[in-house]
Amino acid sequence: MKRTLGTCYYPEHWPEEIWADDARRMAEAGLTWVRIGEFSWSRLEPTSGDLRWEWLDRAIDTLGAVGLRVVLGTPTATPPRWMIDKHPDMLAVDADGRPRKFGSRRHYCFSHLGYREESRRITRLMAERYGQNPHIGAWQTDNEYGCHDTTISYSDAARDGFRNWLAGRYGDINTLNEAWRNIFWSMEYRSFDEVDLPNLTVTEPNPPHVQDFRRYTSDMVVTFNKIQVDEIKAQSKAPVSHNYMGRVTDFDHFAVGADLEIATWDSYPLGFLEDRVGADADHQRAYARQGDPDFQAFHHDLYRAVGRGRWWVMEQQPGPVNWAPYNPSPLPGIVRLWTWEAFAHGAEAVCYFRWRQAPFAQEQMHAGLLRPDSKDAPAIHEAREVAAELADAPEVRPHQAPVALIFDYDSDWAWNTQPHGAGLSYFSLVFDHYRALRRAGLSVDIVPPSQTDFTNYRLIMAPGVMHLMEGLKQALSKAEGYVAYGPRTGARDAGFKIPVPLPPAICGLDVTISRVESLRPDMPVALQGDGAVTGYLEELVGQAPVLLETQTGAPVLVGDNSHSYCGAWLDADGLDRLVEQLCLRVGIERQVMPEGVRTRRTASEEFWFNHRAESVDTPVGPLPPAGVLRRVL
Amino acid sequence: MKRTLGTCYYPEHWPEEIWADDARRMAEAGLTWVRIGEFSWSRLEPTSGDLRWEWLDRAIDTLGAVGLRVVLGTPTATPPRWMIDKHPDMLAVDADGRPRKFGSRRHYCFSHLGYREESRRITRLMAERYGQNPHIGAWQTDNEYGCHDTTISYSDAARDGFRNWLAGRYGDINTLNEAWRNIFWSMEYRSFDEVDLPNLTVTEPNPPHVQDFRRYTSDMVVTFNKIQVDEIKAQSKAPVSHNYMGRVTDFDHFAVGADLEIATWDSYPLGFLEDRVGADADHQRAYARQGDPDFQAFHHDLYRAVGRGRWWVMEQQPGPVNWAPYNPSPLPGIVRLWTWEAFAHGAEAVCYFRWRQAPFAQEQMHAGLLRPDSKDAPAIHEAREVAAELADAPEVRPHQAPVALIFDYDSDWAWNTQPHGAGLSYFSLVFDHYRALRRAGLSVDIVPPSQTDFTNYRLIMAPGVMHLMEGLKQALSKAEGYVAYGPRTGARDAGFKIPVPLPPAICGLDVTISRVESLRPDMPVALQGDGAVTGYLEELVGQAPVLLETQTGAPVLVGDNSHSYCGAWLDADGLDRLVEQLCLRVGIERQVMPEGVRTRRTASEEFWFNHRAESVDTPVGPLPPAGVLRRVL
Amino acid sequence: MKRTLGTCYYPEHWPEEIWADDARRMAEAGLTWVRIGEFSWSRLEPTSGDLRWEWLDRAIDTLGAVGLRVVLGTPTATPPRWMIDKHPDMLAVDADGRPRKFGSRRHYCFSHLGYREESRRITRLMAERYGQNPHIGAWQTDNEYGCHDTTISYSDAARDGFRNWLAGRYGDINTLNEAWRNIFWSMEYRSFDEVDLPNLTVTEPNPPHVQDFRRYTSDMVVTFNKIQVDEIKAQSKAPVSHNYMGRVTDFDHFAVGADLEIATWDSYPLGFLEDRVGADADHQRAYARQGDPDFQAFHHDLYRAVGRGRWWVMEQQPGPVNWAPYNPSPLPGIVRLWTWEAFAHGAEAVCYFRWRQAPFAQEQMHAGLLRPDSKDAPAIHEAREVAAELADAPEVRPHQAPVALIFDYDSDWAWNTQPHGAGLSYFSLVFDHYRALRRAGLSVDIVPPSQTDFTNYRLIMAPGVMHLMEGLKQALSKAEGYVAYGPRTGARDAGFKIPVPLPPAICGLDVTISRVESLRPDMPVALQGDGAVTGYLEELVGQAPVLLETQTGAPVLVGDNSHSYCGAWLDADGLDRLVEQLCLRVGIERQVMPEGVRTRRTASEEFWFNHRAESVDTPVGPLPPAGVLRRVL
Repeated sequence: MKRTLGTCYYPEHWPEEIWADDARRMAEAGLTWVRIGEFSWSRLEPTSGDLRWEWLDRAIDTLGAVGLRVVLGTPTATPPRWMIDKHPDMLAVDADGRPRKFGSRRHYCFSHLGYREESRRITRLMAERYGQNPHIGAWQTDNEYGCHDTTISYSDAARDGFRNWLAGRYGDINTLNEAWRNIFWSMEYRSFDEVDLPNLTVTEPNPPHVQDFRRYTSDMVVTFNKIQVDEIKAQSKAPVSHNYMGRVTDFDHFAVGADLEIATWDSYPLGFLEDRVGADADHQRAYARQGDPDFQAFHHDLYRAVGRGRWWVMEQQPGPVNWAPYNPSPLPGIVRLWTWEAFAHGAEAVCYFRWRQAPFAQEQMHAGLLRPDSKDAPAIHEAREVAAELADAPEVRPHQAPVALIFDYDSDWAWNTQPHGAGLSYFSLVFDHYRALRRAGLSVDIVPPSQTDFTNYRLIMAPGVMHLMEGLKQALSKAEGYVAYGPRTGARDAGFKIPVPLPPAICGLDVTISRVESLRPDMPVALQGDGAVTGYLEELVGQAPVLLETQTGAPVLVGDNSHSYCGAWLDADGLDRLVEQLCLRVGIERQVMPEGVRTRRTASEEFWFNHRAESVDTPVGPLPPAGVLRRVL
Repeated sequence: MKRTLGTCYYPEHWPEEIWADDARRMAEAGLTWVRIGEFSWSRLEPTSGDLRWEWLDRAIDTLGAVGLRVVLGTPTATPPRWMIDKHPDMLAVDADGRPRKFGSRRHYCFSHLGYREESRRITRLMAERYGQNPHIGAWQTDNEYGCHDTTISYSDAARDGFRNWLAGRYGDINTLNEAWRNIFWSMEYRSFDEVDLPNLTVTEPNPPHVQDFRRYTSDMVVTFNKIQVDEIKAQSKAPVSHNYMGRVTDFDHFAVGADLEIATWDSYPLGFLEDRVGADADHQRAYARQGDPDFQAFHHDLYRAVGRGRWWVMEQQPGPVNWAPYNPSPLPGIVRLWTWEAFAHGAEAVCYFRWRQAPFAQEQMHAGLLRPDSKDAPAIHEAREVAAELADAPEVRPHQAPVALIFDYDSDWAWNTQPHGAGLSYFSLVFDHYRALRRAGLSVDIVPPSQTDFTNYRLIMAPGVMHLMEGLKQALSKAEGYVAYGPRTGARDAGFKIPVPLPPAICGLDVTISRVESLRPDMPVALQGDGAVTGYLEELVGQAPVLLETQTGAPVLVGDNSHSYCGAWLDADGLDRLVEQLCLRVGIERQVMPEGVRTRRTASEEFWFNHRAESVDTPVGPLPPAGVLRRVL
Repeated sequence: MKRTLGTCYYPEHWPEEIWADDARRMAEAGLTWVRIGEFSWSRLEPTSGDLRWEWLDRAIDTLGAVGLRVVLGTPTATPPRWMIDKHPDMLAVDADGRPRKFGSRRHYCFSHLGYREESRRITRLMAERYGQNPHIGAWQTDNEYGCHDTTISYSDAARDGFRNWLAGRYGDINTLNEAWRNIFWSMEYRSFDEVDLPNLTVTEPNPPHVQDFRRYTSDMVVTFNKIQVDEIKAQSKAPVSHNYMGRVTDFDHFAVGADLEIATWDSYPLGFLEDRVGADADHQRAYARQGDPDFQAFHHDLYRAVGRGRWWVMEQQPGPVNWAPYNPSPLPGIVRLWTWEAFAHGAEAVCYFRWRQAPFAQEQMHAGLLRPDSKDAPAIHEAREVAAELADAPEVRPHQAPVALIFDYDSDWAWNTQPHGAGLSYFSLVFDHYRALRRAGLSVDIVPPSQTDFTNYRLIMAPGVMHLMEGLKQALSKAEGYVAYGPRTGARDAGFKIPVPLPPAICGLDVTISRVESLRPDMPVALQGDGAVTGYLEELVGQAPVLLETQTGAPVLVGDNSHSYCGAWLDADGLDRLVEQLCLRVGIERQVMPEGVRTRRTASEEFWFNHRAESVDTPVGPLPPAGVLRRVL
């Protein structure tokens, strides 16, 4: 499949007179795809039942006329105002019990059955009208599930749904009481109707109560999405996608992705340095105009897994945005770098958000490929450059990396439910491991916890998988590659209990976690040699060979010829040593990267990227700021 | 008009036996004015309809008997408890939807029609009784509109009022939908009754929605105030005033002031260093006992404009207060400095709050001119010193400064609605410019955006006026003085849209803002030469002559012989260079001030003030701590 | 009475088959006490009226069979889910008006009359069944009153109760209006039914309104507790106790304690370093595995006073816990140190919480004496070591310290109601004094404000007692020992007014506080010589001899041969000088402690404790990390 470019377009925002010229300019810029429709419900159905498809018919015709392929979005992320009158209780409710009002977007609760039916209805109508339209190249369900913290809702609809879900899971209330060990603080229920949502409790609610609510909530997103997918598939052969948000872990993207052909994600490298990457001030300054060198790559690898190989960037930041605490202009050349980086990780398409900057409404300060006055904005030049370069570039081809890194949404919820130390998060732990692998110049496949086949992986890392499902446990124990577990891997059973015999008990190693401590981040525990434990440390007892230990001789990493267990959160130096040891053991050659430089291999190419604002000497020669080197192997 | 002193007094707080002695001591201290009445409703009307004027009659008589002139306040800032039973929905509602309960003060919503009528009724009754009283020298409406964040309310009354206001402004709902471009996220309404207040939305509401709510809210204050003014004027010839709070920008003080004869403000220099001045820790420490050297002066100049030349300090801090995070004692001599500084900026009167420290209730730790045991507190000595000095000082005379600085409340709301970068505020931007002008030794007039005559101003600064109204735009384009625009001046139209052609488009200069970025405050962009851009930077394109540029050659300030546009928020050094360039261009002589020293000229005097706790050498000789030098010209 | 050890056990959490073995191991470890029952309501009464005592009968029999003495807890801290259906309005309500929901513990409002009766009923039933049981050695009411901020509730029940309480206190509404000086902002009421709770007011409510609400709230805890005590005492001769939380000052522990025989507290030295001790980052790091060197001792001394000599540690942290921001493992040996420190301060018993770590529910990461797999956890070895050492140690004997330090809950509420400077708290002030006394090697008795006999105390310190009750005032004025007052002692009358004549007026000294200031913590005011004032400073006038003054000559400490008054919050160096001066004056010998080392004397022993993680040289020789030296005198 050819690598392609695209953009996001809102015909309803612009006079119909300029549609054709817009379409012509898109095509001339080398774009293939144009995504439309996803916020247009109030124009498709101004009042309940009054459908107006004609303008959309014309828009699709106009775009298709110049050869553009349309990605058509269902408009369910923005139910119109009349919908709230029809279903006053459809609004999500925040953890403080306040309904989240109309006036922006995503103002619905995934658990609300009435809105779910409205969503099914508009999707069916849209699929019926456009399912056979030759210009429709793909579909998108809704928009950015979970954005603005909209997955979790404490509404009555959610409460009722949760009770039903629990009844389905546990059968009878005593089973639930026993599974959650509700006796602990006399929290026992007499019926499922007594279970409430785990917000506004006096102190911490029971962890399995929270964890089950998180699982329920994720299931509601899956259900909501599947209804749309089924409606679309009944009418259309075009692939169905959804555009996920990076670092949003409130629902299981793998589970949603299982119902879709293509995973896409919306990549905004500059806006999330502080609150999603969690970078310190120095790092934020150094990469303010480029974004973190690993954050995009991580999500490229993640969504390649979510899409089972097929994935896009549906929204690529093309300039300053409107919504971050600070909104700098990107470094010249970095939009090209971001685009090529996506292709290096296997993307089929990269679409820029948005075609023209809207001089109105919430996103009026969000740059586009065009300025509000329709003149070229800087990014369109870089997009054209990539379009030209793509002409003689290889097609997208599947390629397996030597290293697999497991990512498990359920574990993210579990760490969130019980971080044990302030600030400890599963995402950060996995991301820290990913960074260390990348600093060693390695290409990585992220894999879901449902993976059962690890053939050809030479190294498999499974840090922090709190509950290790039986299938994965078995698959890992049989893997040919070396498996690196911990910290906290297998620390809980499915019911959020500490297993007895004590963890980890997962890899045939004679090691037991006899107790666990969390530490202030300014209290590192030094390793013998470089590196340190930071924030989290387990006391390991047993006879397993010690591979790393603290300066006071406490074992930190133990392992044999096929498995290791790390009982600590290591800092960057410590993780580099861990990766070094593992690579030596399995014979993978490391290639230590200069600061800000990253490399990745595909089936037929090797890429080098310089994420810094300065030139850097690399093993393949000097790379300019935002430099991209592509070598065909 | 003679410069005079006064105080604030609460006869209802003290035994009637001591009133006469208090009055005598006030007169002996050289005070002219005594403000009373503004919190006394529960004594004037203990239950609905049961009016008790006699005690107030006697209080006014007692004060008037020694020659004091009374400022009589309407008591509407403290509706009694029975009012809440009568109008349970009159309470303001906070952004979280919680009613703001009885038990302190200002517990009313400006939009509540029932309370508005109660306010009219008590004002009429008071005006009828005292309108012709010879001791009443002035009136005050209510007390400190907006204090404790009481301008904005999310009550049902506000919602209903807002809908009516919108219907009045837009006529039909489609006009509103189009003006706000509600299509953006399918936010279109079918009737005004569908519009809700812009709180508790899932993510950011539409900026024009917020901005119109801010305008509506400000109008409610204007309306509330005007009702009282009309009632008073129907009965009395004495001037009517209101006491504003500095740094409160939630309503348009110019619009309220248009209905009043005198503007007054309540000056508490020590309590606002942190949250209103926004000073850093070093600055807060250095000026902890003196207050910021420019903050009071700024408001003196602002309220001179609000009062169209007539203004007072109605409440002058005389010692430690009760309400700030930290409440230090003022530096010896600084109460005198504050008083003279007000006169230097044209005040007619300065009144100290309060006469005697109350040993009870909320403000028991608020110093007065007397201690709770009626002994002299330190400030009364400084007040007496000023009273003596006033004897041979010139009268208040109008005097136009060489520099005009525009201050626009609508722009403050607009920046607040869309700061683009965390922490960026219009007030701070204008105040930064004001500081720079003062560091250059210049006297400044603050002028409203309604100003149409700029005759005799040699320099006019208009930074950050987001929407430049047509009248002001025309007046500035025709002004004889040099006009310095930007950043962000003219960046939005009245409907909060980016104009096309792109801004600034306001001064005949060939300059276009092609994009805009905001930056972390620790990422300054250095200018060529001293100074830097901090936090906010526009990309300027066009052929206009460049007057300042960054080290990488990006234009920052462009201009010709009559206009300039600055596309950046400059730091102090950068603003000093801007002021230097502008002064050179228009031939104003700068006089660079030592740290903490400020000067101001009136029609007949030149003042020098040392705000530091140490002696400072100045061009007019050494000034002691809190030193005041007054030279008749 | 012999010093004893114990543990907390939850038979309802474990299979009945292992009870006997658990009991055997407890006895073998040298434990005497086992506390049970306090969270078991849903097993005692699964639905309303369906009582199930049999399992508890068997549990008590099993424990008693090996000689263990049972402390039986009433289960009222965890009302079962059915109780909420029966009394939907029994939930406490937070300051934002949100009910605090079922799902954890302590979900009741102390003011709710219906729940109060349920609490009486279950207590009576329990007392009837076990009042004569020979294995019951003591009782515990409820569990940790006030934990999770559960003392204060803004429920309708609290509002109604508060009105009644006010009616009882003031008789008629005009008396209340006058006492509170509600005229201040027209806050006058016409009846008690108009008084609301002091939350959600527009700005600060009237201080006496808040203070009375705090007093009412405390009274509700006393009432709730007393009902249980009365029911138990009607059936049983065993002593009744309650387990308080350290640093919880929301209710008067002395008043609750007056109805009990024994005070106990729950000591978790590692978890509260940040939010309760208020230590800075360096201190938190240095003592992360040991706890603050004075915090436990302070509470030991406090609860000795609350228990009128009889006190225990009911819950002693034995390892890492689950609930703190960071949960480190204790330093080896420190559990033994903590235990001996309690005995050094007069404890009768120390019980470890909990016997076995529960691998489920909220506290699954809370260490016990056993691991979840029933193997020994580290603390049990230290407990056994203490048990062995206790064999030949003296019994608990009363012993009066040379220094008395007053602790007054009413003052803590008063400082909280009106701190005057951000961060100033009564607890911290008293604790700072306590630390200084301990740094001087002194043993201290904490005494309640109801104390009238100060015989044999050579030094009495009474800092910050905002309202000095007449009885205490008289007792202090007649005390033979030296009395050190201030800052803020006697600063308010019972009605939260500043007395006139002005404070302090309490010790026959010619000193008047003419004004008061608060200062940023980074603005110390240096004393002549070492030390400084920090945060709070009074201006003292009068002829009393000056004992300490600032570098600019302002008096800070004044005094004569029997009394002193300090008008400032002194830093550590300043407090050391204060203590030095006072000790010289009364002839107490100081023994300056090395950092982290503390000493205490009982009737027959002298103890030295090294709280540091390093060896320290002390006057009694080198002490190892966590070292304990016990000398019989």
